[in-house]
Amino acid sequence: MITREDIAAAAARIAPFIRRTPVLTVEVPTPAGPVPVVLKLESLQFTGSFKPRGAFNSLLRLESLDVIACSGGNHGLAVAHAAQVLGKRALIVVPRSAARTKVEAMKACGAEVILAGDVPADAFAEAERQVAARGWPLVHPFDQEPTVAGQGTLGLELLEQAPAVTHWLVAVGGGGFPAGLALAMEGRAEVVPVEPEGCPTLYAAQAAGRPVLVKAEGAARTSLGAPMLGRLPWELLKDRVGPTVLVGEAAILDAQAWLWREVKVVAEPGGATALAALLSGAWVPPPGVPVGVVICGGNADAIPA
Amino acid sequence: MITREDIAAAAARIAPFIRRTPVLTVEVPTPAGPVPVVLKLESLQFTGSFKPRGAFNSLLRLESLDVIACSGGNHGLAVAHAAQVLGKRALIVVPRSAARTKVEAMKACGAEVILAGDVPADAFAEAERQVAARGWPLVHPFDQEPTVAGQGTLGLELLEQAPAVTHWLVAVGGGGFPAGLALAMEGRAEVVPVEPEGCPTLYAAQAAGRPVLVKAEGAARTSLGAPMLGRLPWELLKDRVGPTVLVGEAAILDAQAWLWREVKVVAEPGGATALAALLSGAWVPPPGVPVGVVICGGNADAIPA
Repeated sequence: MITREDIAAAAARIAPFIRRTPVLTVEVPTPAGPVPVVLKLESLQFTGSFKPRGAFNSLLRLESLDVIACSGGNHGLAVAHAAQVLGKRALIVVPRSAARTKVEAMKACGAEVILAGDVPADAFAEAERQVAARGWPLVHPFDQEPTVAGQGTLGLELLEQAPAVTHWLVAVGGGGFPAGLALAMEGRAEVVPVEPEGCPTLYAAQAAGRPVLVKAEGAARTSLGAPMLGRLPWELLKDRVGPTVLVGEAAILDAQAWLWREVKVVAEPGGATALAALLSGAWVPPPGVPVGVVICGGNADAIPA
Repeated sequence: MITREDIAAAAARIAPFIRRTPVLTVEVPTPAGPVPVVLKLESLQFTGSFKPRGAFNSLLRLESLDVIACSGGNHGLAVAHAAQVLGKRALIVVPRSAARTKVEAMKACGAEVILAGDVPADAFAEAERQVAARGWPLVHPFDQEPTVAGQGTLGLELLEQAPAVTHWLVAVGGGGFPAGLALAMEGRAEVVPVEPEGCPTLYAAQAAGRPVLVKAEGAARTSLGAPMLGRLPWELLKDRVGPTVLVGEAAILDAQAWLWREVKVVAEPGGATALAALLSGAWVPPPGVPVGVVICGGNADAIPA
């Protein structure tokens, strides 16, 4: 099983290829009153999301010069970018629902792109077929140790950049990101998982006692819409986080608009989902507890209104 | 004459009302090769620009509950915001060319707004008439000591946040911002002034040996388009900075687009002007010199393409 030492090793491995994104303290107007919140602006990472952390850690550990990734968009873009930087070749399989700008950006990195099906599960199935046909290794978006260890490196940064924060709100898709963070920060800070009502992977797993297939609906599905929580993330998360916090579509879009209007930060819907829990009151911080929010993706096509 | 002690006093005065905006190191592809650059993301300041620094310092020093500001937009928005926070009343005079979103934001802060004329000089003239008619004090956007001292507080932050940087590229409008920075950082780091060919206030002053009226053209005019360099800024700048660096319209728009594409930071054209000098090669850093760029405004209406 993956350990904190794996995350520390990943941090050293990917350091030359990753931006140390900034933190910024702002006052967030929650229904119970204003709360000072540390924002981690990981949307300013290369390719606009945290995904290059896992992508670089994976590609640096693979001997193969060719890799395959399946992705709703951000993971594929990160693998395409990492492959270009490291002189490798990437095939990215995405559902047709993927944002055109992300697909164009993958191609601009020199990646081959296959559009397969309408939902993430279709792209996963096609990626498996491509792996079998080509014999190239799959770089999984959330259910592989190098991916989870890479995403966990952000947790080490949070401990260094905002050591006082005890509760970090983190959006959940396939679960690799919150799993890496929860492991990296164990005993130091808590991960509060947040997910859209339209993509409730962790909610469904917590209810069923194991990962189960879920729908992927709503504006955040292009970054958080995994077919189900990963098995590795589930093993890491099940005893390390409390009940997931669900937020509705309107709360996510409100958070996206608030971030732009008040902080001039552009987040995609999935990137604003964790903040939505605070702004909407879906999660109420214990009084006096220092709170942080990870803004995990900025690949929006327009300024949020 | 204004001193560094005035700036230190301003920093203490405005601290409760100002965000400590983050810095982020990125690699900028200049024509002579990639250069590591520290970006100061002051576009994430309240109201989307550095202007609240001077606005709060001015309003906190005025006994009057009523104030008048003339502005291309960002200064007016900052004064409207500061007045709302401090329980004062603001009249903002802007040219009709001001962005509608900025005017709406001023009104949302409770400010009275007068649209006057088509160019900044018209708004200045109308503001003077309003000062005479109402007897309220004018909060000048760049040619008053409290304004310049307030803007200079950003220079103190730069010295703390990026002490290794010796050259800071800074956009010039009326000159209060680079003047405050140059005074704050004197002997520690140099201000490299950058301005659009369409709004060459410092260029004209350096050529004539004194501030003279200039045109205000191009996309950056809504934030950098002052009728002329301020007299106080000129006194501070004339012996503290080298020749201004002029950048063309295409270079400014390219810099705006690069910042979004590569860093997911939205800058308005004036906010990307300093970066344009590096990206276009209009200014070439001495080899090995640590360089910083102030991204001074983020009030764009759309994602830059």
